[in-house]
Amino acid sequence: MKIIIIGATGTIGKKVTAALEKDHEIVRVGAKSGDLQADITSPASIEDLFKKVGPFDALVSAAGDGHFGPLNTMTDKDFRKGIDSKLMGQVNLVLIGQHYIRPKGSFTLTSGSVSGDPALLTANLSAINAALEGFARASALELHDGIRINVVSPAVVEDSPEYFPFFPGFIPVSMERVVNAYIRSVLGPDTGKTIAAH
Amino acid sequence: MKIIIIGATGTIGKKVTAALEKDHEIVRVGAKSGDLQADITSPASIEDLFKKVGPFDALVSAAGDGHFGPLNTMTDKDFRKGIDSKLMGQVNLVLIGQHYIRPKGSFTLTSGSVSGDPALLTANLSAINAALEGFARASALELHDGIRINVVSPAVVEDSPEYFPFFPGFIPVSMERVVNAYIRSVLGPDTGKTIAAH
Repeated sequence: MKIIIIGATGTIGKKVTAALEKDHEIVRVGAKSGDLQADITSPASIEDLFKKVGPFDALVSAAGDGHFGPLNTMTDKDFRKGIDSKLMGQVNLVLIGQHYIRPKGSFTLTSGSVSGDPALLTANLSAINAALEGFARASALELHDGIRINVVSPAVVEDSPEYFPFFPGFIPVSMERVVNAYIRSVLGPDTGKTIAAH
Repeated sequence: MKIIIIGATGTIGKKVTAALEKDHEIVRVGAKSGDLQADITSPASIEDLFKKVGPFDALVSAAGDGHFGPLNTMTDKDFRKGIDSKLMGQVNLVLIGQHYIRPKGSFTLTSGSVSGDPALLTANLSAINAALEGFARASALELHDGIRINVVSPAVVEDSPEYFPFFPGFIPVSMERVVNAYIRSVLGPDTGKTIAAH
């Protein structure tokens, strides 16, 4: 399969790439690294990416930033950082990518476990992650020709210890479990699901 | 209590107003109707509203539009209609209103059952409604002084028969059940919850 990985050099993306590149043709995409560059906050940049790549079989997105900070100083502008990047960036990968993906292809987006199990400072990320999960549930009803969509929802990952202090008592998830969730979405039959990696 | 109702003349808002006005001081807010007008897509308009109203005990929002339409022609611009109105409008009522609400006050926002139980044409609304529910779960952890936040998630309501053809076999919910969900959020102890009205 020809698999586009957005965020291919990130904490999660590089391990998903390593797991899939043995058996598949991978197109590594980053903001500034990878085989091709794209700014997912720009629909024009996303359209340009798909035009360059041509037809593909799977897209994995492990990209996009949210705003991580206290509610009592949060502003519209703070909140929209996450909307524009992690939410609309990934939504637009699907809205635009649906016109380039091959039949029986799949989209795999990334949310995060704070969607349902929030912590302090996650008002923005909880909203955005839940939105991505809702978007996948609904979009799965309309994608045609066997095209699937899922969201992987990781807990704090073991490879990001800088976040551990913000999640006291939360158990970091192993990268192996996280990678397996993406593999399941890309190679399995699921659609419309939130695949937990907790 | 002094209760601000945003969307007070809408299908849901007018019945919630009728149920609460017997025992409480209601500030009816609409885009073009009500005691005061506000454009919830504008943070400046929201700030102006709270300055006019002064301290309050509860805010109920039954306002905001989403984009209802097919995935295969949906664009970034379509999707952002719902982001700017139903999502950011209601989020900003909380982000700004948290600085005006009295201790032990409450925020009650409105999502919709397609967050978890989507139908065709709901890719945008499923995302936005789920986002509001995630936002409330996370915000409840940070609001102080006993201030609460919940989201009411109604199914298609019996007073909106124009939507029935889009939800075949879905059972419309009675307005009585819907109004009770808002009453429960405003007068009960819940916080961080999605109160289903199905």
